[in-house]
Amino acid sequence: MKIELAKSYGFCFGVKRAIKIAENSKDAATIGELIHNSLEIDRLKANFNVKTLKDISDLKDEKKAIIRTHGITKTDLANLKSKNIDIIDATCPFVTKPQQIVEKMSNEGYEIVFFGDINHPEVKGVMSYSVTNVHVILDEHELDGIKLPAKVAVVSQTTKKLKKYSQIVDYLMQRVKEVRVFNTICNATLENQEAARELSSRADVMIIIGGKNSSNTKQLHLIAKNLCQDSHLIESEDELQKEWFENKKLCGISAGASTPDWIIQKVVDKLSKF
Amino acid sequence: MKIELAKSYGFCFGVKRAIKIAENSKDAATIGELIHNSLEIDRLKANFNVKTLKDISDLKDEKKAIIRTHGITKTDLANLKSKNIDIIDATCPFVTKPQQIVEKMSNEGYEIVFFGDINHPEVKGVMSYSVTNVHVILDEHELDGIKLPAKVAVVSQTTKKLKKYSQIVDYLMQRVKEVRVFNTICNATLENQEAARELSSRADVMIIIGGKNSSNTKQLHLIAKNLCQDSHLIESEDELQKEWFENKKLCGISAGASTPDWIIQKVVDKLSKF
Repeated sequence: MKIELAKSYGFCFGVKRAIKIAENSKDAATIGELIHNSLEIDRLKANFNVKTLKDISDLKDEKKAIIRTHGITKTDLANLKSKNIDIIDATCPFVTKPQQIVEKMSNEGYEIVFFGDINHPEVKGVMSYSVTNVHVILDEHELDGIKLPAKVAVVSQTTKKLKKYSQIVDYLMQRVKEVRVFNTICNATLENQEAARELSSRADVMIIIGGKNSSNTKQLHLIAKNLCQDSHLIESEDELQKEWFENKKLCGISAGASTPDWIIQKVVDKLSKF
Repeated sequence: MKIELAKSYGFCFGVKRAIKIAENSKDAATIGELIHNSLEIDRLKANFNVKTLKDISDLKDEKKAIIRTHGITKTDLANLKSKNIDIIDATCPFVTKPQQIVEKMSNEGYEIVFFGDINHPEVKGVMSYSVTNVHVILDEHELDGIKLPAKVAVVSQTTKKLKKYSQIVDYLMQRVKEVRVFNTICNATLENQEAARELSSRADVMIIIGGKNSSNTKQLHLIAKNLCQDSHLIESEDELQKEWFENKKLCGISAGASTPDWIIQKVVDKLSKF
């Protein structure tokens, strides 16, 4: 069986940056998981004593607090600023951008349609910057029957699928006089998606490596499954099952933006032994 | 053979308004054809002595000049204002709107993508309000290879097909960070299109009545042809050919926004005799 890595995969700019920041912030605490990869978070704890807190209320005598790549809410940021603590901002700049857009657009009177998962920390953070109503949706038909104003601004979670985003915009432009579309899906996400699509169309088994709570990893898995029925999402090499690879000729591999190379390497090593 | 009119067809708000204005402006001259229907223009000449001039340079001793429904260019308007003449503005308010949008957006630094026919008077008028580069296109792929800036505003000719407009927006949002979409396709156009679509899906012959240089009439004809192979675009009952209706069960009729009821009635009368 041949093993092939997608042309683009794994760590994005924002994650690399956040990990470097964490490595340079010994003994700090992150508010929520720094990135959606528990193995990497364990490594930061073991090697740099960077703790992960559930939320701000868990802060005790830490001197440094790191803001996760996904950002935090406006209220949490204000709360953090009121404490006697150094704030180290590891919010991905591509997440700061939609926060700013939502704040500006809602101040200018646009109602916000946000394409994203309402439970995702990035989305909670971005939403909190709106001064008006925000419609957080995963599908355009969630807006059926909702009266929309004449002016709507549309923003996407950075890790969503472009195709679905297009469908949402198409739906809106048929109903609203002005739709202001901000393509906030990040390039790394788009490139990883494009490369996963290309590889999945050729492979007969696909392995997507990443956190099971990672939005961009889940999108990669969806794309792979559409083109290659035998697609598996795993967090580490321990989950690999030998029977997945029986009679397979080409195993394609991709990984989410928060999956470090050392985890990918372990998967490749184990696969090579099958 | 049953004859059925589309649920929505013919004269739109802007055309009705312009004809009323012309009827109240005896002896005036319109700069270019008031509406795209030569029979109605002949009627205005015969009954109200409203002349049609090719352009402003043809103005002689007229005391009143009517601006056509499609509007005129900014330069022509300035030129007209410099003359000793009463200006009567019959520009459709739905055309004035994109003129204002293009002026405002280009002043705010957006590059304009305009979905329309570069030779149509409405498009020439709207384009003239831009202070920057305007890309006038009928298909998104006309933009292939063109370097677009980060911010683009998209506007449509009022009489275009919504489906194609969506495709253009979809293309742009994949290439540009901010796409500001103004749905300037007018409701009458959309309603006539929707009704023509519905009727064409049931009819076995379709007659679209309207000016052969009328953009919205041509769109209706395109829609009808897609769903009903035997679709004919005519300007008057004289063009009807008996053999079109042999062995047909349902003849659907629609008419462009500049087609007066009296022309439609003549077509129906003649059809009833077949």
